[in-house]
Amino acid sequence: MNAVPPNSSSPLLHTRDGRGVHTLTLDRASTFNALSEDMLAAMQAALDAIAIDKSARVLVIAAQGKAFCAGHNLKDMRAHPELAYYQKLFAQCSHMMLGIQNLPVPVIAKVQGLATAAGCQLVAQCDLAVAASHASFGVNGIDVGLFCATPSVPLVRNMPAKQAMEMLLTGEFITADEARVRGLVNRVVPAEALDAELEKLVQSVLLKPKEAIAMGKALFYKQRETGVEAAYQLAGQSMACNMSHPVAQEGVQAFIEKRKPQWPA
Amino acid sequence: MNAVPPNSSSPLLHTRDGRGVHTLTLDRASTFNALSEDMLAAMQAALDAIAIDKSARVLVIAAQGKAFCAGHNLKDMRAHPELAYYQKLFAQCSHMMLGIQNLPVPVIAKVQGLATAAGCQLVAQCDLAVAASHASFGVNGIDVGLFCATPSVPLVRNMPAKQAMEMLLTGEFITADEARVRGLVNRVVPAEALDAELEKLVQSVLLKPKEAIAMGKALFYKQRETGVEAAYQLAGQSMACNMSHPVAQEGVQAFIEKRKPQWPA
Amino acid sequence: MNAVPPNSSSPLLHTRDGRGVHTLTLDRASTFNALSEDMLAAMQAALDAIAIDKSARVLVIAAQGKAFCAGHNLKDMRAHPELAYYQKLFAQCSHMMLGIQNLPVPVIAKVQGLATAAGCQLVAQCDLAVAASHASFGVNGIDVGLFCATPSVPLVRNMPAKQAMEMLLTGEFITADEARVRGLVNRVVPAEALDAELEKLVQSVLLKPKEAIAMGKALFYKQRETGVEAAYQLAGQSMACNMSHPVAQEGVQAFIEKRKPQWPA
Repeated sequence: MNAVPPNSSSPLLHTRDGRGVHTLTLDRASTFNALSEDMLAAMQAALDAIAIDKSARVLVIAAQGKAFCAGHNLKDMRAHPELAYYQKLFAQCSHMMLGIQNLPVPVIAKVQGLATAAGCQLVAQCDLAVAASHASFGVNGIDVGLFCATPSVPLVRNMPAKQAMEMLLTGEFITADEARVRGLVNRVVPAEALDAELEKLVQSVLLKPKEAIAMGKALFYKQRETGVEAAYQLAGQSMACNMSHPVAQEGVQAFIEKRKPQWPA
Repeated sequence: MNAVPPNSSSPLLHTRDGRGVHTLTLDRASTFNALSEDMLAAMQAALDAIAIDKSARVLVIAAQGKAFCAGHNLKDMRAHPELAYYQKLFAQCSHMMLGIQNLPVPVIAKVQGLATAAGCQLVAQCDLAVAASHASFGVNGIDVGLFCATPSVPLVRNMPAKQAMEMLLTGEFITADEARVRGLVNRVVPAEALDAELEKLVQSVLLKPKEAIAMGKALFYKQRETGVEAAYQLAGQSMACNMSHPVAQEGVQAFIEKRKPQWPA
Repeated sequence: MNAVPPNSSSPLLHTRDGRGVHTLTLDRASTFNALSEDMLAAMQAALDAIAIDKSARVLVIAAQGKAFCAGHNLKDMRAHPELAYYQKLFAQCSHMMLGIQNLPVPVIAKVQGLATAAGCQLVAQCDLAVAASHASFGVNGIDVGLFCATPSVPLVRNMPAKQAMEMLLTGEFITADEARVRGLVNRVVPAEALDAELEKLVQSVLLKPKEAIAMGKALFYKQRETGVEAAYQLAGQSMACNMSHPVAQEGVQAFIEKRKPQWPA
């Protein structure tokens, strides 16, 4: 099961199954899986490795313990009270977050507990998210005098503006159900059904050809940032390339012949 | 009733009533009203004609049969496996979709059944949409290896990003009620009430002067793509022009005199 | 309680309590608190004063009477049927609206009744909004032939596009509950609980340091208008500055020591 050897000193478990499903498990329950420099570096290394794994199909970001992720490590931040340190830290974190968006495979957050500050940002930055019904979500840096500026980037791109602003200004948490209604997570199930629900999403993605998903995911985020005319131009080019590709030619042919498409693994 | 003569060889029925209400009815139930080249050409010609009909007031896009629209014609696409063909086809389709946005009258989708891929895009691209409660919505090109790139353009401008991404990656359908909650359609009613609900929206629009609607619709989409300061500048100019126009002068005067405004038809 | 002397000839009551909570109360119930030139000028003057009050913490925008605000004064507009007058009026109004966004403190709308046209815009433009359950919201200028162009600017930035378009085209009103679901207001309570609910939000904001809120609010609206990469760059810089600031240093230290942070008032 573990194509990537586990490293007990790493804060991050990285597994890959025979289907190309990578799983990164934040494994520092004692610090509520804080995004320490080590954790961020381990995540970045893993993302870089997955980006060049040509048979990668999906990435799941999961966590051990009661919390999914509590955001940045406050003790580390207090120990280095220099602007340059903070600039480097937030640049490192933002680079990792953008790496999730830039990855050619879908990235699914599996949220089994509390997601706080940059931990909530991590959920927001993923393409999809499944949460246990007892999970909760907050961007509460403001409680310690630190407005969750970087988390606000994907947050306001995932839910209505006033709802995001309320979370940022008050630091209050929302339930998993509320997160689903607002658009922050896709599906909410009881904790004991979380693995099964995640697996449904994974299997749905595995049934589709990765080339089409890679083209589509990149296009989706790119076109979203432009005006609608430019968006249609980008999308039309992407779709023409996708349709010219053997995976779509086979898919459409199979549809016409009323059979299952046969795509390379 | 039919100001535009029906043409039995056309895949599209175009009617216009005495009130200036145009209706385009996709009329190829046998192909689930696929957006074939012929269908796209007929829609484009109709949009071009409506754009210069100075007494046009509303456009309704409706359909015959069980499906509203099943998107592109896969057989046609498979029969022309050339990049240049696909580029032309998606450009043709995007041009038609933008024509809906650029039309000076409100465009309302009347969704009586399944809306799939570019058929779902057609609903998303309209200004308003009314759906029968049994209708369903999906962007499932990915099932044949073709990510719904062009449909993703209006989709992500109509519902939260993760919800759009889930539909695009899994190909799964959502119900009409779910489409309403997400923002993809405005109103959902039982099938037998669809005509009446549509008529309510149409009548509401007919009570307003078309000059104000034309200015407003154009401004709405333009300002949405800019930063908020530029948006206010554009909107302030538009509103000053609208207020200077005889229709607003009469409307405001009628309001002051507590009578109904008298606008030219 | 009233640090700012009330002026009975002003259409706007401006109070400031010892906590730095400013309240602007629209006080022309007889005209449904219309945004007349006088009202706009009084609001602008108040916003300008609050912007330089270094101990300001929150601004509440409230109203007297049955209506929260009925938008522009139609009699005034009809009395000056000149394009230049309208251009100046809408520029004055837009400048005031942008002043709300540019203010360094959170601005909360307290909506006790009807919010119409530019009155609905005022709610949308605030950072947060609390409404009485009987309040209602509409952008119904189109009923007098005047499309609510400037209200559409914050409206489409606060709710899904088709829902905004329906309100703009039909002029129909939505309930407070519907406004909450769509994202236009944060909280809805019975009228008798409105003061208490507002106070909860105010107290939550007062517990946080104003420097962090000021940096965060400015960043929030700025990053929202850019692409995601630029947004992360802006947000990372803002967060590094915020973390370097004494308020965050103290907040984080207090968190580590498990005590309450001690911030200057």
